[in-house]
Amino acid sequence: LKAYLDCYPCFLRQALDAARMATDDAATHLRILQGVASLIAELPPETTPIEVGMETHRLIRELASCADPYRSVKRTSNDHALFLLPGLRQRVVESPDPLLAAVKLAAVGNVIDFGANPGFDLDRALEEGWAADLGGSDLPEFRRRVAQARDILYIGDNAGEIVFDKLLVEQMVAGGARVTFVVRGGPVLNDATLEDASYVGMDELAEVVSSGVRSPGTILRDAHPDFLDRFHRAELMLAKGQGNFEGLSDVAGPLFFLLKVKCPVIARHLGEELGALVLRASTVDRNGRK
Amino acid sequence: LKAYLDCYPCFLRQALDAARMATDDAATHLRILQGVASLIAELPPETTPIEVGMETHRLIRELASCADPYRSVKRTSNDHALFLLPGLRQRVVESPDPLLAAVKLAAVGNVIDFGANPGFDLDRALEEGWAADLGGSDLPEFRRRVAQARDILYIGDNAGEIVFDKLLVEQMVAGGARVTFVVRGGPVLNDATLEDASYVGMDELAEVVSSGVRSPGTILRDAHPDFLDRFHRAELMLAKGQGNFEGLSDVAGPLFFLLKVKCPVIARHLGEELGALVLRASTVDRNGRK
Repeated sequence: LKAYLDCYPCFLRQALDAARMATDDAATHLRILQGVASLIAELPPETTPIEVGMETHRLIRELASCADPYRSVKRTSNDHALFLLPGLRQRVVESPDPLLAAVKLAAVGNVIDFGANPGFDLDRALEEGWAADLGGSDLPEFRRRVAQARDILYIGDNAGEIVFDKLLVEQMVAGGARVTFVVRGGPVLNDATLEDASYVGMDELAEVVSSGVRSPGTILRDAHPDFLDRFHRAELMLAKGQGNFEGLSDVAGPLFFLLKVKCPVIARHLGEELGALVLRASTVDRNGRK
Repeated sequence: LKAYLDCYPCFLRQALDAARMATDDAATHLRILQGVASLIAELPPETTPIEVGMETHRLIRELASCADPYRSVKRTSNDHALFLLPGLRQRVVESPDPLLAAVKLAAVGNVIDFGANPGFDLDRALEEGWAADLGGSDLPEFRRRVAQARDILYIGDNAGEIVFDKLLVEQMVAGGARVTFVVRGGPVLNDATLEDASYVGMDELAEVVSSGVRSPGTILRDAHPDFLDRFHRAELMLAKGQGNFEGLSDVAGPLFFLLKVKCPVIARHLGEELGALVLRASTVDRNGRK
């Protein structure tokens, strides 16, 4: 998904948010905004939003001399979600349709996003998400694929959200699949890393691997060969969140996207309402046709 | 008022809105956004938002080959407000405090703004504004000054809004003052020009002059000498809207600002709520001290 013109103002807004997360120095905030403005003044066609995000966060780390500005909010998000986990698991287990319940909760967890959605309210998203229907009509196919797959590649998104992902991974494992859980190649935005996966105990359920890319989404071009190998061999893939959708929307399945719609551009692109929980199969075939 | 960093994303958002108003050509939209991004990548310190607006709209006129992209919406705004005018005048006349009523309605009219506030709802703003209190506590001083002044310089803002301004100009004239009404030096955004003043009949109430500046706010440095002369001789000045506030916030009185608060930056700067109607005296003395 290449950047729409409507993304341009948001690039600066997200850069400013991130700059303020990284340092209190106003002169550095200005230099960061100027750097991102220069970047978007000469964006090559076909650039995706997560490529702009990758460059933005690299610039911020450099100019603010801060390796991981979101370290503390990632920890808080993980702790908050871990506190909720037993109750959420109870909901899944007691649900007449545990897989659907886990899919919905994993999508709700995607609200935890300091990039597109910095003012999120997890408790409200939980309440509304639990009551809402799942957008799209790809659940039956997803259900069938999960039941058949022996190996599933699960591409995670954010810290905190990764705890909600555990519920869905548990369902997959209970169905007999082995799950490989993918995290980012290093700290970027509030995205989940190996450290987060370990902190929340994802490594007890799944093999955890890094994509090798330090971008707030999956960019195959820059990914680690080991990840690419797993990606191309996977029987079934699930990619969480807008960033992974932006990076993989032109990639062939068996690939599903699971996300909460958090910006008007994605909403329009998917034909869904802002705030909707969406499970969507990739519409691209193995030859790259839509 | 110099541009805050929070204004930077909004510069791009407003540029995109204006680009789409000027042309349907997506390649031109992109060139415009790239041009504005280059501009804000190297903004000199102390640049005000209306200077960015002036450059943005100049760039759009050039790249889209469109001299006045807002011509049609300005006409619609004037017509809508003229349709409402008799009823509004009735409200003023029947009010126990006609000057306050006219001040409030003139502030409500400031909601008509395709820059900071493109999704405005005039009818709702009218309903809420009429019921609300006027922010700030400078009404008594303003009332006193209006009663004493023989010459008042009234710096207008937007098309449509200028019809609401007529109600307040009528009160000033009824109090014995001569009013000079100031419009922009040429079409820029949806700001009122000589053509709008003539269209709504402002020239029957006041002498209408141009500031000589084609910016969505008053920039004294670039203004016409005749306007500057009137500005420095005025017994009392009233400047409408955020753009004039941005340009004149560091200028000494007797100068009052009357506006509807339409963005978080102005809200924070003024210590008022988003949406508030505010009458505020300049806090700068003749020596430039605050």
